[in-house]
Amino acid sequence: MLEQLKEDVFKANQRLVSSGLVVLTWGNASGFDPATGLVVIKPSGVDYDRMTAADMVVVDLDGKVVEGNLRPSSDTATHIAFYRNFAGVKGAVHTHSVEATAWAQACREIPAYGTTHADTFHGPVPLTRILTEQEVTEAYEANTGKVIVERFRDLEPLAVPGVLVAGHAPFTWGRDPQDAVDHAIALEAIAKMARLTEAVNAAKPAPGLVPYVGEKHYQRKHGKNAYYGQIR
Amino acid sequence: MLEQLKEDVFKANQRLVSSGLVVLTWGNASGFDPATGLVVIKPSGVDYDRMTAADMVVVDLDGKVVEGNLRPSSDTATHIAFYRNFAGVKGAVHTHSVEATAWAQACREIPAYGTTHADTFHGPVPLTRILTEQEVTEAYEANTGKVIVERFRDLEPLAVPGVLVAGHAPFTWGRDPQDAVDHAIALEAIAKMARLTEAVNAAKPAPGLVPYVGEKHYQRKHGKNAYYGQIR
Amino acid sequence: MLEQLKEDVFKANQRLVSSGLVVLTWGNASGFDPATGLVVIKPSGVDYDRMTAADMVVVDLDGKVVEGNLRPSSDTATHIAFYRNFAGVKGAVHTHSVEATAWAQACREIPAYGTTHADTFHGPVPLTRILTEQEVTEAYEANTGKVIVERFRDLEPLAVPGVLVAGHAPFTWGRDPQDAVDHAIALEAIAKMARLTEAVNAAKPAPGLVPYVGEKHYQRKHGKNAYYGQIR
Amino acid sequence: MLEQLKEDVFKANQRLVSSGLVVLTWGNASGFDPATGLVVIKPSGVDYDRMTAADMVVVDLDGKVVEGNLRPSSDTATHIAFYRNFAGVKGAVHTHSVEATAWAQACREIPAYGTTHADTFHGPVPLTRILTEQEVTEAYEANTGKVIVERFRDLEPLAVPGVLVAGHAPFTWGRDPQDAVDHAIALEAIAKMARLTEAVNAAKPAPGLVPYVGEKHYQRKHGKNAYYGQIR
Repeated sequence: MLEQLKEDVFKANQRLVSSGLVVLTWGNASGFDPATGLVVIKPSGVDYDRMTAADMVVVDLDGKVVEGNLRPSSDTATHIAFYRNFAGVKGAVHTHSVEATAWAQACREIPAYGTTHADTFHGPVPLTRILTEQEVTEAYEANTGKVIVERFRDLEPLAVPGVLVAGHAPFTWGRDPQDAVDHAIALEAIAKMARLTEAVNAAKPAPGLVPYVGEKHYQRKHGKNAYYGQIR
Repeated sequence: MLEQLKEDVFKANQRLVSSGLVVLTWGNASGFDPATGLVVIKPSGVDYDRMTAADMVVVDLDGKVVEGNLRPSSDTATHIAFYRNFAGVKGAVHTHSVEATAWAQACREIPAYGTTHADTFHGPVPLTRILTEQEVTEAYEANTGKVIVERFRDLEPLAVPGVLVAGHAPFTWGRDPQDAVDHAIALEAIAKMARLTEAVNAAKPAPGLVPYVGEKHYQRKHGKNAYYGQIR
Repeated sequence: MLEQLKEDVFKANQRLVSSGLVVLTWGNASGFDPATGLVVIKPSGVDYDRMTAADMVVVDLDGKVVEGNLRPSSDTATHIAFYRNFAGVKGAVHTHSVEATAWAQACREIPAYGTTHADTFHGPVPLTRILTEQEVTEAYEANTGKVIVERFRDLEPLAVPGVLVAGHAPFTWGRDPQDAVDHAIALEAIAKMARLTEAVNAAKPAPGLVPYVGEKHYQRKHGKNAYYGQIR
Repeated sequence: MLEQLKEDVFKANQRLVSSGLVVLTWGNASGFDPATGLVVIKPSGVDYDRMTAADMVVVDLDGKVVEGNLRPSSDTATHIAFYRNFAGVKGAVHTHSVEATAWAQACREIPAYGTTHADTFHGPVPLTRILTEQEVTEAYEANTGKVIVERFRDLEPLAVPGVLVAGHAPFTWGRDPQDAVDHAIALEAIAKMARLTEAVNAAKPAPGLVPYVGEKHYQRKHGKNAYYGQIR
């Protein structure tokens, strides 16, 4: 079942490695099929080298395995939270990519310092609150999803396609698994650019992006009259 | 038409990726044919993997598409500004390479701290002013070109073959598309070296390059009696 | 003898290079066979390009060569200290990977700033004391092993699978040679993340990881009821 | 003539690129044949992609071309200074590798912060003085060699196989061209480690290496009773 989506999710996972975002088994990508309400996700802790599309695990929105011989990613419950709560999201990615993880560990949102940021994220990259001890004990991964969803109460997930989980690492999402990988690559790049911007500008706070330039960049790529890219 | 230039521009675009300056679709290279007054440029938002030389778009100096089935780069109007205003420039490149972009985001010119800088740039790498809201609204990309040209009022474009657009990222140019890519690679390297020079020298301002050594390096490579490289 | 272990140790050494942890000949991996009490280790100062599995050297726990035409790694005595003193350890790795080495040179333990750290190291990455001049003169490599073992008096080696030797570089270990390489890769990543976390957070000390989240991550991967990875 | 040395020098130049020390044409390696007193060096400004062993240029110790159709490296006079003045040196390398260049631009010697440094450099990596304007005007490259030789008046070139030219970049040397490349790779690594050591240790000066440990590392690799590597 869902063979095409398995192939897409498999390729998205491979691309996390080839793009340098993931070492060892530190990442996972999933995809969502709205027609069946099913999620396809990477198996937990399997070497990327030996993984095949057939190893992808199919789970329902309660996290129950519907197909597959391997355990799904230990972060499955977090991915499910996106598909349950974020309209239009059909792909999700989790990595521990170093630059974005540094901001998550420093418990800082990433300010919009330039147009590279504005091309992908409409506003700062948000940070979740820290989970309470009870939330960690009771249902760690589901509650990680919960605090992310909570942080997006007043945000549009497809306009801000990623988040930093405090003390942990980033999650990104998109219209399909490859779109979520694109956002993971973009997030790592802007996290690095933001750090270097502050380093270059150590004497005074970095100036940030003039709001109307940021808006222009976001709109020319994603707005009603977008003219970046090809007409689809 | 212009098949050789299309091939050159295509290869210049591929090299932006292989040299690590561009991820996703964040860059573009173009070339100019003075005989016909036409520009060949990368199509907008197309994956580098699937792109062929035949996908390159031909536009005139008003930005009108003369040949090609795809939309030209959204930054076409900026490239055109170079070909209209900078004598001898026949290739141009735009990237969001991280180190140069950090300086652009920090709104700092890159000081000449060493001979690597002096080998390619005759003086600091300049920074544009920030566009006004009206300039952004009316014709963002054309006005990006305008503020670059404005910044070069008293500079020689082929002696200072690149610029940082404030809050945005670098543009470079040269005698042909490959020359513009060389300058993009050089700019990224000197941006990184300048940041590291300041980091290593945090206690006191970095000393900068002795002017007569910088002049020597620039002249041995580009001056009347240059002796770097082979006789052409 | 021990042909399979030689193959494993050879592959572990190759992976140190392919993962970017080792340049030139600056690293070595070994494996331990508890049944015979023998150690298989990389030969000293041999180019990785020309090395074969047959070049691996077999030594006993006194460091005497049992098989092999080449000298064993100059760090053999340090590896042996692990196999003599750390129950369950059957693989060990030494590198001069830049990020972990920077912490060793700075004589700082690596604090647990996030879950990436907690996934592999149960607590900070420890630092040894500096050897005395007499210890260096008498038996440098054996005494390097001694100060590491000394530092682990109250630590569980398989829960904290690595150490920074002050002024020198990291050693890691594990249940087999590949496990030790995994820990060397993980250590390099968390060393970099910790440095970047402090850089991003220069104004105030980085917050560190909430203890109950760190505990959760360690336990879900390594605890009695671990659910990360596949059932073995 | 000197076909074997041409092959060695060619391979050394290629390795500068494959090891990431050189981009564009920013580097050169040479070799010296004491029997004939001739030097083999890379041609100036030629693309590494198109270069062959046959393109290497043979010059005498006065810099006169003895064989070859291309101009020798513009830095030839600097290389010759090593072969004229440093006993036992038969290979030399010049790069603008970013980390070492940052220290050269910052006009700082690289302190010995750890054993990685001590394994290759017996003491800090020295820095030359800045050339006078007259020295630059009269014979820039020969005088670059002169200030390097001057800096080594009280140093042993084979024990300290490299130097930072103030405001410029590093030169390294060795017993043959590949040895000089090894030292260029080692220098870049220790330059990066030293920068990171200071970054990790921002609050207080990095402690530096205990002298007797540094001495031990240098001697176990290069001393009379060296036991690192294989017996030759």
